[in-house]
Amino acid sequence: MESPISQYLGTVHREISTLDEGQPSHSTPVLAEGDPDGFGIAIATVDGHVYEVGDAGQEFTIQSISKALSYAIALEDHGFGFVDERIDVEPSGDAFNEISLQTNGRPDNPLINAGAIATTALIDPGREGRAARILEAYGRFAGRELHVDEASHRQESRYGDRNRAMGYLMKSFGIIEGDVEQALDDYFLQCSISVTARDLALVAATLANNGVNPVTGVRAATPAVNARVLSVMSTCGMYDDSGHWMTEVGIPAKSGVGGGIIAVLSGEMGLAVYSPPLDEHGSSVRGVETCRRLAGDLQLHFAHATAAAQATVRGVYPVSESPSQVRRNQEAQDVLDEYAARAMVVELQGDLMFAAVDSSVRAIIDAVEGDVVTVIVDGRRVGKVLDASAEIFRNLRESFAGEGRELVVVDPEGLLPLPEGIRTFDTKDSAAAWAEDLIIERYGSEDSRPERVGLLDSPLAAHISAEQRQRLGGLLERRQAREGEEILTPGEDFAGIHMIISGRVRQSLPVRMDEAGDRPSGDAAREELTVGELSPGMTFGEGCLGFSDRQILRVTALDDVEYFLLPAAVLDRLDREDPAFALLVWQAIAREGYRQVGHQLREIGLRTSQMG
Amino acid sequence: MESPISQYLGTVHREISTLDEGQPSHSTPVLAEGDPDGFGIAIATVDGHVYEVGDAGQEFTIQSISKALSYAIALEDHGFGFVDERIDVEPSGDAFNEISLQTNGRPDNPLINAGAIATTALIDPGREGRAARILEAYGRFAGRELHVDEASHRQESRYGDRNRAMGYLMKSFGIIEGDVEQALDDYFLQCSISVTARDLALVAATLANNGVNPVTGVRAATPAVNARVLSVMSTCGMYDDSGHWMTEVGIPAKSGVGGGIIAVLSGEMGLAVYSPPLDEHGSSVRGVETCRRLAGDLQLHFAHATAAAQATVRGVYPVSESPSQVRRNQEAQDVLDEYAARAMVVELQGDLMFAAVDSSVRAIIDAVEGDVVTVIVDGRRVGKVLDASAEIFRNLRESFAGEGRELVVVDPEGLLPLPEGIRTFDTKDSAAAWAEDLIIERYGSEDSRPERVGLLDSPLAAHISAEQRQRLGGLLERRQAREGEEILTPGEDFAGIHMIISGRVRQSLPVRMDEAGDRPSGDAAREELTVGELSPGMTFGEGCLGFSDRQILRVTALDDVEYFLLPAAVLDRLDREDPAFALLVWQAIAREGYRQVGHQLREIGLRTSQMG
Repeated sequence: MESPISQYLGTVHREISTLDEGQPSHSTPVLAEGDPDGFGIAIATVDGHVYEVGDAGQEFTIQSISKALSYAIALEDHGFGFVDERIDVEPSGDAFNEISLQTNGRPDNPLINAGAIATTALIDPGREGRAARILEAYGRFAGRELHVDEASHRQESRYGDRNRAMGYLMKSFGIIEGDVEQALDDYFLQCSISVTARDLALVAATLANNGVNPVTGVRAATPAVNARVLSVMSTCGMYDDSGHWMTEVGIPAKSGVGGGIIAVLSGEMGLAVYSPPLDEHGSSVRGVETCRRLAGDLQLHFAHATAAAQATVRGVYPVSESPSQVRRNQEAQDVLDEYAARAMVVELQGDLMFAAVDSSVRAIIDAVEGDVVTVIVDGRRVGKVLDASAEIFRNLRESFAGEGRELVVVDPEGLLPLPEGIRTFDTKDSAAAWAEDLIIERYGSEDSRPERVGLLDSPLAAHISAEQRQRLGGLLERRQAREGEEILTPGEDFAGIHMIISGRVRQSLPVRMDEAGDRPSGDAAREELTVGELSPGMTFGEGCLGFSDRQILRVTALDDVEYFLLPAAVLDRLDREDPAFALLVWQAIAREGYRQVGHQLREIGLRTSQMG
Repeated sequence: MESPISQYLGTVHREISTLDEGQPSHSTPVLAEGDPDGFGIAIATVDGHVYEVGDAGQEFTIQSISKALSYAIALEDHGFGFVDERIDVEPSGDAFNEISLQTNGRPDNPLINAGAIATTALIDPGREGRAARILEAYGRFAGRELHVDEASHRQESRYGDRNRAMGYLMKSFGIIEGDVEQALDDYFLQCSISVTARDLALVAATLANNGVNPVTGVRAATPAVNARVLSVMSTCGMYDDSGHWMTEVGIPAKSGVGGGIIAVLSGEMGLAVYSPPLDEHGSSVRGVETCRRLAGDLQLHFAHATAAAQATVRGVYPVSESPSQVRRNQEAQDVLDEYAARAMVVELQGDLMFAAVDSSVRAIIDAVEGDVVTVIVDGRRVGKVLDASAEIFRNLRESFAGEGRELVVVDPEGLLPLPEGIRTFDTKDSAAAWAEDLIIERYGSEDSRPERVGLLDSPLAAHISAEQRQRLGGLLERRQAREGEEILTPGEDFAGIHMIISGRVRQSLPVRMDEAGDRPSGDAAREELTVGELSPGMTFGEGCLGFSDRQILRVTALDDVEYFLLPAAVLDRLDREDPAFALLVWQAIAREGYRQVGHQLREIGLRTSQMG
């Protein structure tokens, strides 16, 4: 099936093909031979997908687009300070070939010819020579081995007297040291490297991807250097047209007189166009128009970057609205009924950049009123996180501590940059259970804090008489499991109903890994989804009754666990021998099942209703 | 509780207070009296929250920050074409007060003095006069009524000969028409408007918020004009330091010699600093340093804007992995078992800007293999959507249609810009049911497509003999409900078990609206969460058994519905009179309950495992 995005690019290509203004550069014969009808568009996404339309596979010389890449090499070789002393980063307002230097001979920026020659002269030749280093570095951006168009290289040199003049002028100022002819020859060579629009789209996508080629995964520039290159492209990339460019297109770009142009949408994609006819600024007419058109249609302009961050607080509610599944005795439940609103949950989602951190923190603070003793921050749906939020969380923890409250976080993947001293949990249920325990500890009596429960606390025994309970007790087996032991395995037959007396178990669901949900293969621990932690009083093993009596969950002891088991065989016998009594048990089982359905529904409902 | 973000800003303020370089401007006595120790920082978020530290309430003159605002007024008054003819948008590379004009007398940009004077001259005086219009417009940006510092106004005029010279020079070129002295006076006045750092943070937040003041909700600039102002600020805002600024700070900014500076993080927040001592470019030393510091800590630089979009495809799976809850007869189930993988689900989440649209579309195309007849796009978790995606979806629909497949979308809020002819659903369950029907229609026989079911198809009758089934049938009442009728109401007592014979019902959960989950008040339909649509063969009314027998869901007939009811009273009597038979019914109820628990768990597990 043809990609609708390719179809869209095809439409754009067709429409812009009708533009026939401009002429190929005449500065060298190779450039003058550029095909006026040649026109290709390529887009590469930061996850490495490439769309190509028209002549996106046609080779042509990279020309001034090289300046951005050589600047990256020089910065990696010498660091910012050294390079900045020799080449400034101010837009010059001049045409690309203007002989304009600052009073100390320093070129205004690395993207005008003078600055680019000075940049090339800074590239360390290393052992393999400067030309080889340039080809190798450009190849890392493009993701394939590149070569030099030798005819172009010879002609750039033959017709390069204006550049030669600039080179010698900078040499006279001491901006260029060493062999200026060699530096000029290397500059002519870098301009003559042969590329396609596809190559350039990948160069742009590498810049959009923080310096890593999205297809090969190879790093072409460190993040700091990559950001610097983009900054300079944004202010100086389109020469004396840079202001108009930022006004109309609004993303960093660089053009070359070979007819190429690249534009970078950070974090999303790189765009490249090939079409030799140039406008008066030396940029491809169709290239500029394609960028303008896509910037409009696809809202690429930086001023349209309105963050998604506003939807970050997913919900704020007392823990009593979404209690843990821990079964409490009546005393404890009474305490919770009265005080559970003193533990609040704040659910976050999305990337935590500034606006999101801000709204999250305000929601957390707003959740703290009067007697609130703890706030659970549910960070399970958080994506990228601002490093600086570590300090924000530290301040927050201290404010909490100063008021005798505790801030805890659900963060199973360890994504949040949390300071020392913030308690974390893997599941919201375990955090809620901890918060409930805290409330029972603080507001309850001895009676509400048992570490063990009896049959009385079981859902099986909820609606039966003392006599019936005694009889039920006689049917139960008392069992133990050691920490880490697997009590129930997915696929096994219904074994009976288990009720925890002491300790906790984990229920997990094996999830199929497919392409879309692929996880790093070593990360076996994540291949099972924890669906809950169960505590004394809670039952397990009955869930498979809905699945032809075959266990779907794995149950593992988290501590040393003691539990009652009403074995399947005993239940079976009871069904036959004393249906009236069995009926009571099955009613209890049914009610517990629908309690769980309702718990899940409320949980889902709560979340959905509170999405922004 | 003190905001940890305020605490953080306090730390920054304290640290930068130690910087004591620079001097207040000496261009007028009022400016020279600026307090060298005065230092305030304010941040305003796009949702209207303001943080203030230090002297953020101190008034001072807005000076050149006014240029950005007057440019917005002139653009609103005359449109881009008219203004662009008179004032270019190229960075000049010159200092703010340089007398530099293009050969036709046109100033390089509206943020150097010459361009700003020309801009002010373009503002239409209207009825109330230009000064009143300027004050009113600035007030919309700041969100409060502003006034002019009259002493400053007089002095700006008295010491304004250099500006006067530029005014007359532009008048000689015809760039300024009409009364040049009046234009100059209005320019001196606009520079003398009194503001605080708090005001300026709100001005910046308005620019960050697409032109709407985030506190008052009043529009100060149209989105196109707002974007243009930001573009020009990004390339020309810091005069001859603009290149360094974009390199180090990387967000649009504007400074004034009164000691103010604003910086705009689009979609997130506006930042303003007040501190009179200036650097050699005429910008506040502490202001620049504060911007630099926050840009680093908070990763404000545009090159760090890596989109969250990559996590957009939440899951791709055949509908058979998350089937609808519709109960099928055995023939239909056999067809589904064999063919249900021919209907695929693609779950999306997050904002659909370019990269996200791209990855979504690729996931949709990849989901179409061989015999797939339909793809359900689950768009329930989608946020903002690129307008241009309408064309992408249109292309996609046509590709699907051309191959005899159908693309359908779950989009209860109508957020996606879908073209005509794409079928939409409110719940995933109803889309899945539709897809299953399509498959049964296509691959099944007459037998697999009944519109009515009998008792045999009920979960109540799943594991009992023909004789027992007949007996059960005798206990049931046959009922009807008209389309729209409410069959069960939240809060009512357990009424019995209902089994649908024909027609469909909706189950919905009333959800509490609180501050965090607030919805537009008129949107009553959204105040209940649809948790499912039930079809023939499915049961309802038993869910409340887990909640002390009080109904938690509302059940409403979607069509004219026929159903069997096993009334609660009959079930009760059966428990007492024939426990052996009642046991069979309760076992069926329990199994159906746990089937629902498992269905929900799988649904949750599926989603979580497939998140990126």
